[in-house]
Amino acid sequence: MATGQFKQLRRSYGFDEVAIVPGDVTANPDQTNIDFKVDNFTFTIPIIASAMDAVTDVNFAILMSKLGGLAVLNLEGVQTRYDNPEEVLSEIAQAPDTEATPLLQKIYSQPIKDNLIGERIQAIKKAGAVCAVSVAPANTKRLAPIAAEAKADIFVVQSTVTSAKHISKSYRGLIFPELRQSIPMPIIVGNCVSYSACLELLRTGISGVLVGIGPGAACTTREVLGVGVPQITATIDCAAARDKYLSESGKYIPIITDGGFRKGGELCKAFAAGADAVMLGSVFAQAKESPGLGYHWGMSLPHPALPRGTRIKVGTTGTLEQILFGPTSVTDGSQNLVGALRTAMGVCGALTIQEMHKVEMVVAPAITTEGKSWQLSAT
Amino acid sequence: MATGQFKQLRRSYGFDEVAIVPGDVTANPDQTNIDFKVDNFTFTIPIIASAMDAVTDVNFAILMSKLGGLAVLNLEGVQTRYDNPEEVLSEIAQAPDTEATPLLQKIYSQPIKDNLIGERIQAIKKAGAVCAVSVAPANTKRLAPIAAEAKADIFVVQSTVTSAKHISKSYRGLIFPELRQSIPMPIIVGNCVSYSACLELLRTGISGVLVGIGPGAACTTREVLGVGVPQITATIDCAAARDKYLSESGKYIPIITDGGFRKGGELCKAFAAGADAVMLGSVFAQAKESPGLGYHWGMSLPHPALPRGTRIKVGTTGTLEQILFGPTSVTDGSQNLVGALRTAMGVCGALTIQEMHKVEMVVAPAITTEGKSWQLSAT
Amino acid sequence: MATGQFKQLRRSYGFDEVAIVPGDVTANPDQTNIDFKVDNFTFTIPIIASAMDAVTDVNFAILMSKLGGLAVLNLEGVQTRYDNPEEVLSEIAQAPDTEATPLLQKIYSQPIKDNLIGERIQAIKKAGAVCAVSVAPANTKRLAPIAAEAKADIFVVQSTVTSAKHISKSYRGLIFPELRQSIPMPIIVGNCVSYSACLELLRTGISGVLVGIGPGAACTTREVLGVGVPQITATIDCAAARDKYLSESGKYIPIITDGGFRKGGELCKAFAAGADAVMLGSVFAQAKESPGLGYHWGMSLPHPALPRGTRIKVGTTGTLEQILFGPTSVTDGSQNLVGALRTAMGVCGALTIQEMHKVEMVVAPAITTEGKSWQLSAT
Amino acid sequence: MATGQFKQLRRSYGFDEVAIVPGDVTANPDQTNIDFKVDNFTFTIPIIASAMDAVTDVNFAILMSKLGGLAVLNLEGVQTRYDNPEEVLSEIAQAPDTEATPLLQKIYSQPIKDNLIGERIQAIKKAGAVCAVSVAPANTKRLAPIAAEAKADIFVVQSTVTSAKHISKSYRGLIFPELRQSIPMPIIVGNCVSYSACLELLRTGISGVLVGIGPGAACTTREVLGVGVPQITATIDCAAARDKYLSESGKYIPIITDGGFRKGGELCKAFAAGADAVMLGSVFAQAKESPGLGYHWGMSLPHPALPRGTRIKVGTTGTLEQILFGPTSVTDGSQNLVGALRTAMGVCGALTIQEMHKVEMVVAPAITTEGKSWQLSAT
Repeated sequence: MATGQFKQLRRSYGFDEVAIVPGDVTANPDQTNIDFKVDNFTFTIPIIASAMDAVTDVNFAILMSKLGGLAVLNLEGVQTRYDNPEEVLSEIAQAPDTEATPLLQKIYSQPIKDNLIGERIQAIKKAGAVCAVSVAPANTKRLAPIAAEAKADIFVVQSTVTSAKHISKSYRGLIFPELRQSIPMPIIVGNCVSYSACLELLRTGISGVLVGIGPGAACTTREVLGVGVPQITATIDCAAARDKYLSESGKYIPIITDGGFRKGGELCKAFAAGADAVMLGSVFAQAKESPGLGYHWGMSLPHPALPRGTRIKVGTTGTLEQILFGPTSVTDGSQNLVGALRTAMGVCGALTIQEMHKVEMVVAPAITTEGKSWQLSAT
Repeated sequence: MATGQFKQLRRSYGFDEVAIVPGDVTANPDQTNIDFKVDNFTFTIPIIASAMDAVTDVNFAILMSKLGGLAVLNLEGVQTRYDNPEEVLSEIAQAPDTEATPLLQKIYSQPIKDNLIGERIQAIKKAGAVCAVSVAPANTKRLAPIAAEAKADIFVVQSTVTSAKHISKSYRGLIFPELRQSIPMPIIVGNCVSYSACLELLRTGISGVLVGIGPGAACTTREVLGVGVPQITATIDCAAARDKYLSESGKYIPIITDGGFRKGGELCKAFAAGADAVMLGSVFAQAKESPGLGYHWGMSLPHPALPRGTRIKVGTTGTLEQILFGPTSVTDGSQNLVGALRTAMGVCGALTIQEMHKVEMVVAPAITTEGKSWQLSAT
Repeated sequence: MATGQFKQLRRSYGFDEVAIVPGDVTANPDQTNIDFKVDNFTFTIPIIASAMDAVTDVNFAILMSKLGGLAVLNLEGVQTRYDNPEEVLSEIAQAPDTEATPLLQKIYSQPIKDNLIGERIQAIKKAGAVCAVSVAPANTKRLAPIAAEAKADIFVVQSTVTSAKHISKSYRGLIFPELRQSIPMPIIVGNCVSYSACLELLRTGISGVLVGIGPGAACTTREVLGVGVPQITATIDCAAARDKYLSESGKYIPIITDGGFRKGGELCKAFAAGADAVMLGSVFAQAKESPGLGYHWGMSLPHPALPRGTRIKVGTTGTLEQILFGPTSVTDGSQNLVGALRTAMGVCGALTIQEMHKVEMVVAPAITTEGKSWQLSAT
Repeated sequence: MATGQFKQLRRSYGFDEVAIVPGDVTANPDQTNIDFKVDNFTFTIPIIASAMDAVTDVNFAILMSKLGGLAVLNLEGVQTRYDNPEEVLSEIAQAPDTEATPLLQKIYSQPIKDNLIGERIQAIKKAGAVCAVSVAPANTKRLAPIAAEAKADIFVVQSTVTSAKHISKSYRGLIFPELRQSIPMPIIVGNCVSYSACLELLRTGISGVLVGIGPGAACTTREVLGVGVPQITATIDCAAARDKYLSESGKYIPIITDGGFRKGGELCKAFAAGADAVMLGSVFAQAKESPGLGYHWGMSLPHPALPRGTRIKVGTTGTLEQILFGPTSVTDGSQNLVGALRTAMGVCGALTIQEMHKVEMVVAPAITTEGKSWQLSAT
């Protein structure tokens, strides 16, 4: 057999398939520094709330900023389509399962109101919080100037898959170096999952890259399109692109792993794989302060012809502060995420996130229950 | 240990175990060309409805042709054994589970009526549709002339496993070069799964190869015989045979991945693995216009001594047009298959099916749920 | 890391993880020859019923011989401990689950009656059947002469793990070359799973080797002892030992894969892995003619201090003839095992068992359901 | 792709993924010697009961010592915080599931009473038993002198992850060579999982190492922190460190695999992977004599801000003697652990634990059910 001509398939790995190996030296958790920087902004925790309507509204963005992190407001969601988004969010939460997708398709067919963009941004800024906003590539040229005028701090361009170069007959694609010239804010772009796509994005001069396609709780991209790379491999590959770009440009641009997180252990693994920060969706949709009222849905769901995602019930499990810092009586890893990260860094002897990037991981399938069967059947 | 003398086992992959990696360049979905050619026939969508009684009858074949694809009529099924096949199909749909297999064994024991072959073909042709018909190798010599006389357009010779050379004491096996001489239609042959078997079939001068043994929803070949190769590996291997044959003959003969498809993501992966078209069974059995009345069964099931397959309830989920082109509110990938393919090609920057053959895939087991557990428990 | 000093672990495979790749040439199933030879005995089907009390009694042995195969009578089971074993078998079948193991421990504590050994053997011989009997290594010296005197045809020495050399302070281990001298029958020995253990057994001059430790339906050796090699790897390795022994001695000694079979597909894979014959337990316990009355249990279960195995309900699914040759309406591969084997050989173009040894197999985990989910939920 | 710069992930294995290959020579189980030595102490069985409150109290330690093994008393658990620990243990057993974690957090917030340490140790010693006690690294300097004064025999320093060097600003870390000078007892330290971390610990001059992070039945470290290495790989790696240390120092220091054991087969695999002894928790919590009253919980569970572990119901299945030596009617491998070990050594022809270290193992996923499906559905 002439095997040379056959397509090669590389093995990739998700959160559930790897585990962190503790170090030869350990450290006190309170010794660790977990700062995260985007351009001139420094955050005391490397955790970002995602630009999803069930997660981030004005109040949530202010609270997240106060707690040391960052939340991104979606400029194409219900917050900028409705004067009173609470009503719409309540309607979504009350819809029966079978009607949720058509209802979302209808709600997101309303137009975006430019004036609401300014109002939301200013409400966040007025509270003294850092304001990050997100738009899809197709709407960037129209919405970026409005966001800039309202003095948003960080501008996120995000779609399921974003590349440095987009082919279209009907319109001229978004050129990131041009965008950088036109607005004064640092730009974060995503999502991507491969070494080469990430490197091409970094070379456009942006300030951050979002990593992850397909893994989120409210996303069915992999089922519908067959597209997606598990998060550990995606993070490892994009971290390698970041390091390559650092060596060729001298600039350290952070990569942010986005999607699929449910608990502290996964977050720790993302950093061990090379992430500078993580973006969480469904975990924060469980917070008492989140606007989703115990529900969560993906932002590519409302596509009128090819919805990808489902509305899911996530419940409300605690305050945002508890989710981030504890204390907690929950033992499944869904609360005190910062405590988990610092403890994991401690047992690895990693004093900074960049040291955490260097710790060893092994492939260790979760399928190996090893004595866990009692837990499952415990009553 | 003298390991050299031990049998080697190569790893193979199915749909659920791989994922497509998006490209460094993206493209607009409406920019993509997904034409599929068999000899002088060009279809605007690379999707074929399989020669199964729950999927293709005269009306379904006409509709599929109008929508740009192709449907294959089984010349050895109920359509050519019964003057009024609707009655029989209704009887199958109404049988209790425990009686379904014996009933099918009985129904398929009725003889094929030559006159019905002509009638069915002419009904399809009269509507202006492309007419493809299929027979098993054993009946090819008898039925091919009848199909030719009725002016069928494309002739499919199909069994679970078909090879270029068949050993038998009792009869002289089917010789494909001879068959090509005897009938004027392009011939598609299948199924096969390996590089060498596919290459031998291509060298007989046929116009297309069906790829896939064992993966279908209504097929238990792998349980009963232990035989079968998962579809991604089978497609990769047969695509390599196609490329080899192209390099030795200058002719590009399409390979058609057949069996096991449930949703758009799998279809996209088949093209990324090298397929020129896909053949769908159970997905189309779910169409409002399909003759199976919400049920589906494999054509090797009715074997009197060794049935392989089960009648399964697939339900009716939408019109054929919705399944192919949407729009849809279903988020599991079972509808708008063409939209899914074009979107996947877009995120990969592939403007043609042949460019789609070159995109990267990774091994990414579906077992890695990564945040999907909420979906499963969502109520 | 000095990886050189770390213990290496080789990957092994079971039935569910592999699949047979069809050949470039196919053949008619009725063209295939599936004869199996042990010394001067030739059987027309390569299938042996195991020496378990739920499977083989005098009547079953006679029937199996008539159908072309072989059944092995356990000389240490209920047939030689009880004048009227039917009573005891009925008691076992009627015991509640919680009492099954203690009951079996009690039943098998009764002594073996030498006179019954002779009676059972002669009953089989009188019917014109080939009579194979089995004993454990520890009892071989005592029971072999009795079996020889009663003119058994084939003598099987079987325990969970049998090696060519056994270390003991308290007694002198069984020496197979000595045993060969002392009794006139061909000797089959097992079980073993590795290349070297099998080769050492072959070098003692025996006439057949049983392959398989731990995989049986009624066996928990792997849970209790951690010992066992999946059947495909065990068969491949022992087939390599057989070929090695052939090259050094000129003698072709058959290997018999024993344990873990449930359906035709698995049986076909065992032959593709190199087996000359297969030994079935639980599949035959399902036969109308088997003495287990719908139940099955392992022969190492009754160990008084460390039972390994459970009594399981297997049900009664058909006659032995149906299980072997069909016809059947069952589509799960549990009936018409010979038809399945011949059909699989046909699609592989293998005309003899030895040609079947050469067909390609791939690793193809059953976990890849590929469209099988409908089957699971089909109602 | 510049793959050289990407993080590498090594495959690791747990109990369920491997199996022991029997040897070419077998031996009588009663021929095997399974002695285990720590410094000048020799135990006739290589099995240690873990320092968990549901497992070891004074009576259990005495019984375990009489039966030839060792039990470790936790000096920071309920036995040294409460004059009457039985009351507290009963309260834990009676708490509803939802209140178990907060209750444990409260119970373990009571201070340790120095006088109780002395009383417990002396009660064990008075009975003629070997007394092993355990403390966490942070409390070692305070509690070690008290344990030494009370004449404990073996001193265990144990936390989830313990390294030879700990970084802290707030206090001076524990220095094991200093500890060795200050107390006269042999010191066992753990837990660790990697070659290098184990080797560093061995080089501090201690007398034993505990191996295992994350696998225990009552532990969720891997979920919460993402940290952990499956036990087979951890044992293989640490056994390599032991052998390396032997070659550089001439001293053979035992490694003790700790956590995740449920049945005999797993224990046998740990020895085949290189363990000199095993430490069991949940299996012994099932003993009639254990203080947990049918419940079990991890000692890192009570952490007030980040609990890792759950209280689980394990039930009471037999006496400690039955669990260790049988006889038993249980066929799942949870009883007669010593019998299982000796039998496994027998089929491998291993006469000592060190010979057992050399037996072959294969990767053989438990997912390969091979005929086990009947067991699951057996009624």
